[in-house]
Amino acid sequence: MAANQTQVQRWDIFELRLNGPETGNPFLEVSLKALFQFKNRTIECSGFYDGDGVYRIRFMPDTPGTWRYRIESSAGELAGREGEFQCVEASGSNHGPVGIRNRYHFAYADGTAFHPIGTTCYAWVHQGEELEKNTLATLRTAPFNKIRMCVFPKHYAFNENEPPRHIFEVVSSAGSDSSGKLDTTRFNPDYFRHLEKRIGQLRDLGIEADIVLFHAYDRWGYADMGAEADDRYLRYTVARLAAFRNVWWSLANEYDLMKSKSMSDWDRFFRIVREEDPHGHLRSIHNCRGFYDHGKPWITHQSIQYNSSDMRKVAEWREQYQKPLLIDECGYEGNIHLGWGNLPARELVCRCWEILTRGGYPTCHGETYVHPQDILWWSKGGALHGESPERLEFLRQILDEAPSDELEPVDFGHDVGCVGKPVSSGKPGEYYLLYFGIRQPAFRRLDLPEDHRFIIDVIDTWEMNVQRACGSFSGKCQIELPGKPYVALRIVRQTDT
Amino acid sequence: MAANQTQVQRWDIFELRLNGPETGNPFLEVSLKALFQFKNRTIECSGFYDGDGVYRIRFMPDTPGTWRYRIESSAGELAGREGEFQCVEASGSNHGPVGIRNRYHFAYADGTAFHPIGTTCYAWVHQGEELEKNTLATLRTAPFNKIRMCVFPKHYAFNENEPPRHIFEVVSSAGSDSSGKLDTTRFNPDYFRHLEKRIGQLRDLGIEADIVLFHAYDRWGYADMGAEADDRYLRYTVARLAAFRNVWWSLANEYDLMKSKSMSDWDRFFRIVREEDPHGHLRSIHNCRGFYDHGKPWITHQSIQYNSSDMRKVAEWREQYQKPLLIDECGYEGNIHLGWGNLPARELVCRCWEILTRGGYPTCHGETYVHPQDILWWSKGGALHGESPERLEFLRQILDEAPSDELEPVDFGHDVGCVGKPVSSGKPGEYYLLYFGIRQPAFRRLDLPEDHRFIIDVIDTWEMNVQRACGSFSGKCQIELPGKPYVALRIVRQTDT
Repeated sequence: MAANQTQVQRWDIFELRLNGPETGNPFLEVSLKALFQFKNRTIECSGFYDGDGVYRIRFMPDTPGTWRYRIESSAGELAGREGEFQCVEASGSNHGPVGIRNRYHFAYADGTAFHPIGTTCYAWVHQGEELEKNTLATLRTAPFNKIRMCVFPKHYAFNENEPPRHIFEVVSSAGSDSSGKLDTTRFNPDYFRHLEKRIGQLRDLGIEADIVLFHAYDRWGYADMGAEADDRYLRYTVARLAAFRNVWWSLANEYDLMKSKSMSDWDRFFRIVREEDPHGHLRSIHNCRGFYDHGKPWITHQSIQYNSSDMRKVAEWREQYQKPLLIDECGYEGNIHLGWGNLPARELVCRCWEILTRGGYPTCHGETYVHPQDILWWSKGGALHGESPERLEFLRQILDEAPSDELEPVDFGHDVGCVGKPVSSGKPGEYYLLYFGIRQPAFRRLDLPEDHRFIIDVIDTWEMNVQRACGSFSGKCQIELPGKPYVALRIVRQTDT
Repeated sequence: MAANQTQVQRWDIFELRLNGPETGNPFLEVSLKALFQFKNRTIECSGFYDGDGVYRIRFMPDTPGTWRYRIESSAGELAGREGEFQCVEASGSNHGPVGIRNRYHFAYADGTAFHPIGTTCYAWVHQGEELEKNTLATLRTAPFNKIRMCVFPKHYAFNENEPPRHIFEVVSSAGSDSSGKLDTTRFNPDYFRHLEKRIGQLRDLGIEADIVLFHAYDRWGYADMGAEADDRYLRYTVARLAAFRNVWWSLANEYDLMKSKSMSDWDRFFRIVREEDPHGHLRSIHNCRGFYDHGKPWITHQSIQYNSSDMRKVAEWREQYQKPLLIDECGYEGNIHLGWGNLPARELVCRCWEILTRGGYPTCHGETYVHPQDILWWSKGGALHGESPERLEFLRQILDEAPSDELEPVDFGHDVGCVGKPVSSGKPGEYYLLYFGIRQPAFRRLDLPEDHRFIIDVIDTWEMNVQRACGSFSGKCQIELPGKPYVALRIVRQTDT
């Protein structure tokens, strides 16, 4: 065993590097795991072969103190080794992994609220150094704290390029076909090291990586590898990535378009991911048309595609499945010929506000403007050209300024979305965020709790300004509005003076 | 019997004026009908008491030639009278009543296509001479060929005024309450004469009067008269109005808000209207939330309220009920505080195009701008202030220019609405009208029939201009688009030269 770490931050990666057999096919033939122990609690954690005779086991400790470990392996030279390390408290921007809080919401492990505002760059890690660096530079100043991204490369309109690395070893084909044939029994560690570097960079930017494990848009064979290879791929990928605190598992993008997989395949994939992930990262699956049953117990949150300008369904599905609801796709800002990729920025931003004020989270940003080199953000990353990101930054600020980080739907009339902290347990309402969407009322009548006074901010979500209404409001009252679309109201209880 | 007409145009009103008993309560006590006979066909037609000892029977002959009639009555002085008149061919703008054609469409009785483009002025006949004249002047140059209007006055926000006339005699109350108490056994012929004058004026403007027979917005007692009075009111109203060729029956606006009536009441009302109307005018009922079952055989067309920016349901309901579908309400252009009355013109016009290209008809115009005297078009009429009417005029022109007057849904991709005359019985497609709605594609790929060439007009439905694309198109092709919302394509087969 090489010299290993003796100290690691809580929720950082403790990694064991081991030298072991490199003959035969170690990916198939060598089993490896470690049992990590904190006091009387033991966590089993699979290792993986990283090529060139090197094996690794990665673990994300969740508790400060002394952790001990013992290795088990089919390879005698690896088995039985033991050691320990110190886990120290997290610092800086390390808040731990994101989990569910209070049924419909998210928080980091340290208790910090997490309000998902997400984007999608499916194949950005398959674009080569220059473009990937550009993507990271863009993300650095973008408002997003979550990104949907695929393990496999993408074959689709605007995505004809060959990936620099494949997930498996490529067996050269007889002819000049550069794609060759994938050997699904041999992973390409170089690909995964690259992927891990990118996930780490996202983590350092404060961005959760929603890792899409399967998708249908394929010309290499990834979409139809057979059950044995699928399962092996899942185990290997989870073993490599699960110690990254910013990883979420998205079993598929548009699972229902993968004709080679049945519902029982998807259920089995979830079982495997649950078994293999010692850290219990978030798990979801994304539909094209037909929903997967989000009520199944292994689903942690709803990941929904719904391309509609009418988001009232959000409230319905939230209630239906009693889990956090993310609209991960609702059409992208852009101007391409395909129906999911040509929304005006106004419409995308409006949908995001509707989603938020109907009780969901808007993780559906994406950009698909025609580009001379086919570099569309939604798949390849690069630069952002649209008008929605700064408005989503504004939305995120409004959300971050809310006095409560767990807003619940409030009924302020069926025509408006509203979330807030309403009257509960005899205490007066504290905060409401109403959104009028496309509507352009010149005024609104409100029915606020009578025993307190409220201040009201009129928010133009498109122009990104906040205007405080004169005076304070209480009980049945009326507020003047600018009579144009995309207006929200922030109603905050005045603190007693 | 006074001197009566001896000649009438087909689909005009033949009216018998009779003097009869005026003692007691003739509304209750005198039965009256005529049997109109053309060759071996006999049509039974109820008469009505018009006050001051005058009885009338109105009939709309549908066939040119000699019609004979014989009167039956419980009053001996009326019974047994006979006569005849000549029906001559219609002329000018008289195309007869509107009926259903080819399951999903409308046509006048003379075969002229009728494409409903409708508005709503619920209580315009209750506003007094000056405002009603203004309304008619507005309608003269407006694009609408159908209007929804109530028999009863309306009590609601912005509708606090007392109607000049009541439908029944008002029994003076003891106090100074001007509303008095309605005697539902005695109709007010003056009210009906006024209503009939307005219906006739609409007819002369080429506008179908969609007569709303019941509604919930009431402070006088019309909404809860009891079954006996309801039924009497229906029989009397149908007897008076059914000979107007431009009458449609809308059993209610928002029937499901009338808590005093059960589903069996509505079914009975339809039975009465069918029995009493010798001319078989169109019959529908309008929902607030829960649909009446439009599959019931007495429903001629779907009259739907659906306030959504996503109109894909139109195609679904059309298929479901296999009847013409009118979205009669989808939110109005305006800026009032209520959620159904504050759409921007762009959104209303967009919804109308969506409705049309999903296979329905947009009869949902209405206007609700805040007005210093509370004169909102949607209920009181008056002037139009908005930006949608000229766009609906433009839409109507596009529709009237279509080479086929019965456009059917065509699948051009699930993201766009499209109606047209597609390939059928081996003949190539002739015409398609596609609408992109809020989407802003920079181009579109089309898959047109290969054995003909098409010309394509790019229509900006908001700016109201039509730009012909260069060249002609066939098979798989691509069309450049302006990359902004509210664009439609008109694709017309080139005639062989």
